[in-house]
Amino acid sequence: VRLVVVGGDAAGMTAASHVVRAQTDADVVVVERGPYTSYSMCGIPYLVGGEIDGPERLVVRTPDEFREAGMTVHMGTEAVAIDAAARTVRVRDAQHRERDEPYDALLWAAGAHPVVPPLPGAAEHGLVVHTLDEGERLRGVLDARPGIRHVVVVGAGYIGMELAEALVRRQLDVTLLDMAPQVMGSLDPDMADHVQRALERFGIRVRLGEVLLAIREPAGQCREVVTDRGAYRAELVVLAVGARPSVDVPAAAGCEVGVSGALRVDDRMRTTVPGIWAAGDCVEARHLVSGAEVNIQLGTHANKQGKVAGIDIVAAVDDPASRRGDAAFPGVVGTAVTKVCELEIARTGLNESQAQAAGLEYRAVRFTSTARSGYMADPGRVHVKMLAEAGTGRLLGAQLVGTGNVAKRIDVAATWCQVGLTVQQAQLLDLAYSPPFGSVWDVLQVGARKLARELRLSPVL
Amino acid sequence: VRLVVVGGDAAGMTAASHVVRAQTDADVVVVERGPYTSYSMCGIPYLVGGEIDGPERLVVRTPDEFREAGMTVHMGTEAVAIDAAARTVRVRDAQHRERDEPYDALLWAAGAHPVVPPLPGAAEHGLVVHTLDEGERLRGVLDARPGIRHVVVVGAGYIGMELAEALVRRQLDVTLLDMAPQVMGSLDPDMADHVQRALERFGIRVRLGEVLLAIREPAGQCREVVTDRGAYRAELVVLAVGARPSVDVPAAAGCEVGVSGALRVDDRMRTTVPGIWAAGDCVEARHLVSGAEVNIQLGTHANKQGKVAGIDIVAAVDDPASRRGDAAFPGVVGTAVTKVCELEIARTGLNESQAQAAGLEYRAVRFTSTARSGYMADPGRVHVKMLAEAGTGRLLGAQLVGTGNVAKRIDVAATWCQVGLTVQQAQLLDLAYSPPFGSVWDVLQVGARKLARELRLSPVL
Repeated sequence: VRLVVVGGDAAGMTAASHVVRAQTDADVVVVERGPYTSYSMCGIPYLVGGEIDGPERLVVRTPDEFREAGMTVHMGTEAVAIDAAARTVRVRDAQHRERDEPYDALLWAAGAHPVVPPLPGAAEHGLVVHTLDEGERLRGVLDARPGIRHVVVVGAGYIGMELAEALVRRQLDVTLLDMAPQVMGSLDPDMADHVQRALERFGIRVRLGEVLLAIREPAGQCREVVTDRGAYRAELVVLAVGARPSVDVPAAAGCEVGVSGALRVDDRMRTTVPGIWAAGDCVEARHLVSGAEVNIQLGTHANKQGKVAGIDIVAAVDDPASRRGDAAFPGVVGTAVTKVCELEIARTGLNESQAQAAGLEYRAVRFTSTARSGYMADPGRVHVKMLAEAGTGRLLGAQLVGTGNVAKRIDVAATWCQVGLTVQQAQLLDLAYSPPFGSVWDVLQVGARKLARELRLSPVL
Repeated sequence: VRLVVVGGDAAGMTAASHVVRAQTDADVVVVERGPYTSYSMCGIPYLVGGEIDGPERLVVRTPDEFREAGMTVHMGTEAVAIDAAARTVRVRDAQHRERDEPYDALLWAAGAHPVVPPLPGAAEHGLVVHTLDEGERLRGVLDARPGIRHVVVVGAGYIGMELAEALVRRQLDVTLLDMAPQVMGSLDPDMADHVQRALERFGIRVRLGEVLLAIREPAGQCREVVTDRGAYRAELVVLAVGARPSVDVPAAAGCEVGVSGALRVDDRMRTTVPGIWAAGDCVEARHLVSGAEVNIQLGTHANKQGKVAGIDIVAAVDDPASRRGDAAFPGVVGTAVTKVCELEIARTGLNESQAQAAGLEYRAVRFTSTARSGYMADPGRVHVKMLAEAGTGRLLGAQLVGTGNVAKRIDVAATWCQVGLTVQQAQLLDLAYSPPFGSVWDVLQVGARKLARELRLSPVL
């Protein structure tokens, strides 16, 4: 049995490792474009900011460690075409030599490609920071060019914000630019406001609703970032405007691309072409609250999907008659967390615009509470927003922005969203209380009570 | 309609406030033994330690505020007998005058009484710290007697540990004594070990498996705490050996006392005697994991139960035919959290001895992980223990002890316990990840995977 895995990060290596362990006679071949396997993409801003020594700290397992585990790993190698009928994948190595790798099963786990806006000078003068080697390159540029004082970061999503913070920590003057009227589009504008103010307090110049038009290099090392409202001088421009799922090669081989622009897969991570599985940032998944197919690029999903794919591949090649692995990926609820400046920012489920897009009838509540009991020396703050469905009271989503006890609390709401818990039930859960961690009614239960009241549901505690 | 509430803290005042709001013509009479209403018992150790200025900081609402809301509040007044047939409760005021208060509905929310061991000198020389005035008294003694250097705290549960820490913060030499072989009996011994070591690192002398025999006062202000293994000199002795539910008066009126020693109530907080409700520390509740009736004295339950009782009382007096309020208290899962020294300590569900007592077949896993991603500057530590049921994979309990991101994470496991989630399902939940808050597989999901593997369940991610 021969498995070819395209992409050597979370999804691909989780699957490859599972197959090697479960089927010791399997021939597992991994091709990876870059120079690293299995690393933490989420750690890159901390590498750039200097909180982490070097890129190797972010690597969970090296190519050699995977080789020792029994697989073949080709680094610097890209998959350029799939012949699904012949079951071969054409790969191109670092020397631009091409060859065909035959497979019984192919896992496409090539991730996503950072978007470079098709604007004058963007590709030439803008740095993308998506992979670990790109993070390392940015850090190298900063280390090598002490003349860099001003940086423009284009894109105020998670990565843009985290990079902007890291650059301020390096004593740089940072402008964060986004065409959207708010930072962090996964939050509602009222919640994103709190984040914007924290960025500004931290010293980041935030420019919203401003459209990038070009990046010029008028003289020497200085760039000029031109927008519809003006121009910013900077020695460095970072582009963080999102990433597009890598689907072209499997799509050309007949794999269906879904509404989200990512590959369609079933709950065993099978694409629509027999013999080809896909997992990670390049696939779409069912959003369990809205029912929509979404592409959410996170390591948490990539790891789970890689494992599900690995289990299914073993089942399929082991016994083509039974053909299905025991594990099924159920979908996602849009949980995410980040730390920006002093704020913990977390969200799950749907925000208001998503709930509206899903055609759901809902009510939202928003309030501010303390992160610890109000009588403690430093009570801190937590801004809370929650949505529930009219009629049923099902929790649709939660957004938390605060100075403490926020991050893992979102997992409580995420569980509620995923199991379909109602706000009426949520009020009565036995949640923890102690003064250093909140109030006797947990903020999520306060929100549940408010929502039950707003929606005229019963009971309301 | 006349409601008499015995006990002016969380359960009683929540119910009284609900009835006053819902039935503006109701005559609501509260009798409270002490000098305070509605205060945070959990804040008392912080008052003793000096982190909080004065007792009034812990008071949520004063008697006068409740009076302004429309109720009658008798402070310094104790309920001494109930005549359930005549529907009167005999009360004794601060001047020891007795009178009968008639009621249509009576809510018994008298809480619990701290246990004073029936040992020589215990009542005379030991201070209990259960109510806010007792906390204030302890603080007053410490402020007034700078000669106090050595303190013995008897009882190494939450309150004993929190008080011991507070006393060390006041530069005192503290010995913490318990007859049990471990601190904090709600944890398994292997998890309690981590807590004990943190107490010791903080400078607390922990003496376990040692039985208090007497407290003597050989000379002047110095006490001698005599145990089966030796004697400790101390200028102050604090007793924190638990509290017994206050049930004698309603029990004498015919209210049934359950196996836990607390009052039996139905899910509307009705005792077995018509016209008498009970809520808070004096009642027992169904443990939703074990099915046993338990008495867990926590403000979280008292608040919910008070509200449920208030809703039911309004329904019952409003319309004796329908007679049931909309809200039902479902039970508890034993969730609790505390902060002791540098550790966050949290637990939910059953520990091993509780699972064994419940006759459940289970497996337990225990491991140590980091509180943040391992590559971060200060990754911290989280010790995790989780139990799941054989066959079904239902999560039975979780214990977390660590230096960060522990406290509200227990609410995730609490929700899993309360809704009956299995470890197979838990692996696939969409939980949050970012390097400052953990690893890509949340520790609770790591535990779920280990348990699924141990129990030979499928799938195992």
